Amino acid sequence: MATKKETAAFEAGIKLGALYHQFVGTPVSLETAESLEQAMARSISLQPHVRRVEVHINREMLKRNVFGYGELEGRMIQAVVEIDYLGERAVARLEYDPAKDYPLMSLVH
Amino acid sequence: MATKKETAAFEAGIKLGALYHQFVGTPVSLETAESLEQAMARSISLQPHVRRVEVHINREMLKRNVFGYGELEGRMIQAVVEIDYLGERAVARLEYDPAKDYPLMSLVH
Amino acid sequence: MATKKETAAFEAGIKLGALYHQFVGTPVSLETAESLEQAMARSISLQPHVRRVEVHINREMLKRNVFGYGELEGRMIQAVVEIDYLGERAVARLEYDPAKDYPLMSLVH
Amino acid sequence: MATKKETAAFEAGIKLGALYHQFVGTPVSLETAESLEQAMARSISLQPHVRRVEVHINREMLKRNVFGYGELEGRMIQAVVEIDYLGERAVARLEYDPAKDYPLMSLVH
Repeated sequence: MATKKETAAFEAGIKLGALYHQFVGTPVSLETAESLEQAMARSISLQPHVRRVEVHINREMLKRNVFGYGELEGRMIQAVVEIDYLGERAVARLEYDPAKDYPLMSLVH
Repeated sequence: MATKKETAAFEAGIKLGALYHQFVGTPVSLETAESLEQAMARSISLQPHVRRVEVHINREMLKRNVFGYGELEGRMIQAVVEIDYLGERAVARLEYDPAKDYPLMSLVH
Repeated sequence: MATKKETAAFEAGIKLGALYHQFVGTPVSLETAESLEQAMARSISLQPHVRRVEVHINREMLKRNVFGYGELEGRMIQAVVEIDYLGERAVARLEYDPAKDYPLMSLVH
Repeated sequence: MATKKETAAFEAGIKLGALYHQFVGTPVSLETAESLEQAMARSISLQPHVRRVEVHINREMLKRNVFGYGELEGRMIQAVVEIDYLGERAVARLEYDPAKDYPLMSLVH
């Protein structure tokens, strides 16, 4: 049977997977990035056992296309999720890894 | 070849299809609905030829689950999109049709 | 009031907007591209007034990441949607425009 | 620092969160459910450290709307994901819990 610590880690994974796949593809620009960050963080904060969610969209990667906006790509998202599962804590992060050219999700605590 | 009016209608369709399929499934509650409405409207407003986007999430349908929140369903979304394509206008709406039990998208102008 | 031709164009737009925003972000590789193309085409074919949907994922753009797969990006999708709305037809296309570096949706008929 | 077992649990969570939020909202019918199940399973199988993914869409919940199809809802999805992270295994499940009326994700091993 899973320990509380393992379940906290599992819950953290769910949140990052949800955050990523719900919002990738959303039209976004420098002007709307903050509104989108807030909606993303607040939405995932509703899920079970969440204590904290922080979302930051990398403005430098947010290049404008010919129509003056871009789309949210996974590598633009920096996020931290903190879970409290029955007193056990897990902290996980989503962050672009330039060496691997991959939006890496990792358990940091 | 398509007329400007037909193209305006086409563009309006794109925006409603995008709005719907990007955001359905997002966790939402009474407390976060406004933040999500704003992010949805601002995001779709960035797309080409958009003049106006209004989004309203039906609070009465927003029932809480056992964890105190719900998920955005298509039938909860009321939206109006106005397109200006080279001077030709199209206005389209997404609204739940209770008789058909269907989130209907229609061209209203 | 909208003509049948305008409504057909509107319906075509809905389908392309849905196709794009539902599936962008999906993990995909050379081995799974065909299965994803089929699921995308069959899913959108269910929507009202659709007569034909064709979806092709550009294999050359499908670069592998460090873990051996990639994610569906809008510019990888080539799609054609044909609508029949009460006898009036609309054909629309989604195709990457290299000059604009943009996944362009257009009404071709 | 996280143990391998905790990381395996974290990875399992990512996969279920991704599966759910990528595909909820997809048009689906009795005729297309199998194609969608396959695309879902094959897509998530590509993600790192996945050993097995099984996806089943509940046909009984798949009610047809006025246009003869429905949309994938979270509660229709039954899924099992098995992770192997450096030799440590985690098995997680997504299954509708009728008592809680909630699509529950849980770590089963």
